Amino acid sequence: MHLDIASALNRLRTEAPLVHNITNYVVMNTTANALLAIGASPAMVHAPDEVEEFVEISRALVVNIGTLSAHWVDAMHRAVDRANAKGIPWVLDPVGAGATSYRTRVAAELARKQPAVLRGNASEILAVAGAAGRTTKGVDSVHSPQAVLQEARNLAQTLGTVVAMTGAVDIVTDGQQVARISNGHAMMARVTGLGCTATALTGAYCAVEKPFPAAVAALAALGVAGERAASAAEGPGSLQLRLLDELYKLDSETLASARIEIE
Amino acid sequence: MHLDIASALNRLRTEAPLVHNITNYVVMNTTANALLAIGASPAMVHAPDEVEEFVEISRALVVNIGTLSAHWVDAMHRAVDRANAKGIPWVLDPVGAGATSYRTRVAAELARKQPAVLRGNASEILAVAGAAGRTTKGVDSVHSPQAVLQEARNLAQTLGTVVAMTGAVDIVTDGQQVARISNGHAMMARVTGLGCTATALTGAYCAVEKPFPAAVAALAALGVAGERAASAAEGPGSLQLRLLDELYKLDSETLASARIEIE
Amino acid sequence: MHLDIASALNRLRTEAPLVHNITNYVVMNTTANALLAIGASPAMVHAPDEVEEFVEISRALVVNIGTLSAHWVDAMHRAVDRANAKGIPWVLDPVGAGATSYRTRVAAELARKQPAVLRGNASEILAVAGAAGRTTKGVDSVHSPQAVLQEARNLAQTLGTVVAMTGAVDIVTDGQQVARISNGHAMMARVTGLGCTATALTGAYCAVEKPFPAAVAALAALGVAGERAASAAEGPGSLQLRLLDELYKLDSETLASARIEIE
Repeated sequence: MHLDIASALNRLRTEAPLVHNITNYVVMNTTANALLAIGASPAMVHAPDEVEEFVEISRALVVNIGTLSAHWVDAMHRAVDRANAKGIPWVLDPVGAGATSYRTRVAAELARKQPAVLRGNASEILAVAGAAGRTTKGVDSVHSPQAVLQEARNLAQTLGTVVAMTGAVDIVTDGQQVARISNGHAMMARVTGLGCTATALTGAYCAVEKPFPAAVAALAALGVAGERAASAAEGPGSLQLRLLDELYKLDSETLASARIEIE
Repeated sequence: MHLDIASALNRLRTEAPLVHNITNYVVMNTTANALLAIGASPAMVHAPDEVEEFVEISRALVVNIGTLSAHWVDAMHRAVDRANAKGIPWVLDPVGAGATSYRTRVAAELARKQPAVLRGNASEILAVAGAAGRTTKGVDSVHSPQAVLQEARNLAQTLGTVVAMTGAVDIVTDGQQVARISNGHAMMARVTGLGCTATALTGAYCAVEKPFPAAVAALAALGVAGERAASAAEGPGSLQLRLLDELYKLDSETLASARIEIE
Repeated sequence: MHLDIASALNRLRTEAPLVHNITNYVVMNTTANALLAIGASPAMVHAPDEVEEFVEISRALVVNIGTLSAHWVDAMHRAVDRANAKGIPWVLDPVGAGATSYRTRVAAELARKQPAVLRGNASEILAVAGAAGRTTKGVDSVHSPQAVLQEARNLAQTLGTVVAMTGAVDIVTDGQQVARISNGHAMMARVTGLGCTATALTGAYCAVEKPFPAAVAALAALGVAGERAASAAEGPGSLQLRLLDELYKLDSETLASARIEIE
């Protein structure tokens, strides 16, 4: 598997896929920079007037509801429908699902359109799974991925998608296989948008790899880069900066420290 | 007072309050990171469809008009009304009040809804006080806090709010008491969004402290972290990064360098 | 010419012109910080209710269509029309022109309103020139400035504007004169928004200088600061941070390394 994630990274860098993002205001800069640092070509495009045309020239689509509003949700559906019609993989980040009924409903409606990967924290996945009442504290998780593994498996099977839950240990499942990635660092939770970055990188890998290995490769890349960045960081400011440097410098050698278990 | 601001910080970190922000596009990432660095749990949520529900699960609300437009102003009023109904403290940042009539009117309308704290630069406070014609140069101040102290005091009494004016020396007043905080560094004016960061941190402290000490504690924390960051910075890029590290590392020892006078 | 760009920078810092930006979500923070670092006073203001009033108190206007949508395009036209009526210089960044028909049309409509400077990569300039079918890959260029020089010259003459094309070597032309600036560093392409930063800085220089020398001075400043930043950077994260420090530290000595040829 280590070899695979190194190959996937090489493919990503060689092909430099155009990744169409409809994402939230907070992280647009962060995720564009992460995509550039790892070797993809990001674009943030959300106008209903152009999302369908734009997604057609893209290799993957990232949909993130962090700062959703009615016009943006309309654009998300248009882009997703066109991506599905054209066989372009897309990933969904249901930021804050469970925090308000509006957010949960929008997340669930999008999730039913069969993203290649659904990436969230455990509370968000639980909210999408409908197993939860109001269990999300804002946008931060109050659950651990391991605790909601069974719900994630069921959700993956029901939706026909790959579910990627990030936390201290990340879990990726297609309903059958389960991968655990145990890289990363606790300080990463003190930087905004790293969950969204996980989603964006997953989108980039989906352009060059099938959904399950794409999600594993993306979370491993972010985990390895994040723990390398954190080890030299004095705080979350340095971490954010160094993370981009480490994504840029990732190679087969650094990726060898990825801790991935698959069952 | 030094002891108090250290206790307030401890409480903030222990409780990690959810802070609901309706803020401007320029600083969303910056202020989310500052709130995370100091120990709060930020969320940026602005859709009219969900702000009322979201503010109810929050411990404080931050309203910042930096990049206002009609839909956002509608959401601000909805959130503020619900916060007031539920007794949730909220703070107002009247960015650029005085620069255009639209901006001044929106700021004044929100200010009349009794924020716990109104945080601005001296020109903005003057504009909200109605003491000014067009006295703001864009979003940067052309006045000093000391020069408009009397207007700030009157405004605090009229609105029944705490006014926090930031500048070379910050001034906080509830109309009676006046606190002066003289930390910070001139280079901080070369980084965008540090005024907005002052407001966001004030919101977080309002979740664990009464408005007057909350504003003092927030401005002292930012001032101490800022001057520590600036002392090692080569320019505004490094300053911005180090500021997050310093907010993360703040403790009773570093806070002992806060220079606060209360009369 | 070296002497001139140093004088222009001094003037910029002395006058600290208010620069009105209607720009994209991805780069608002980045370009505000770059404008502050070099010595200007940026404001991001986009509401149709206030753009006309705001542009009148500004010394330059920057219009960037990176994340355009209908309401924003309306505001852009209002601000541009008022700027033209009042003789306030404005610059246009046609981000991603050529990628979708909507984006190309909006860029062309704005370009016809005679910006002082049109700043884009070669693919975007080609798209605005109408010489291209769909030749843009997302927002990244697939052409070099040198390859489309003739089209740029014709476009400058047709529109009566200065065209500034950035790439490995930047080209600025008013249709007659051609300047080439060969500073910068390849790693700059791995940081989002540096093209937009070039445009924003050009706007600031237009407040204190005529369009052709303004564009040359801005691209030289960014190129010099960028190559200095890159030389010490471990990756794009450090580069972004150091770039702000270097813009802040620019002076006649560092600007002496600008490589500018004019024919």
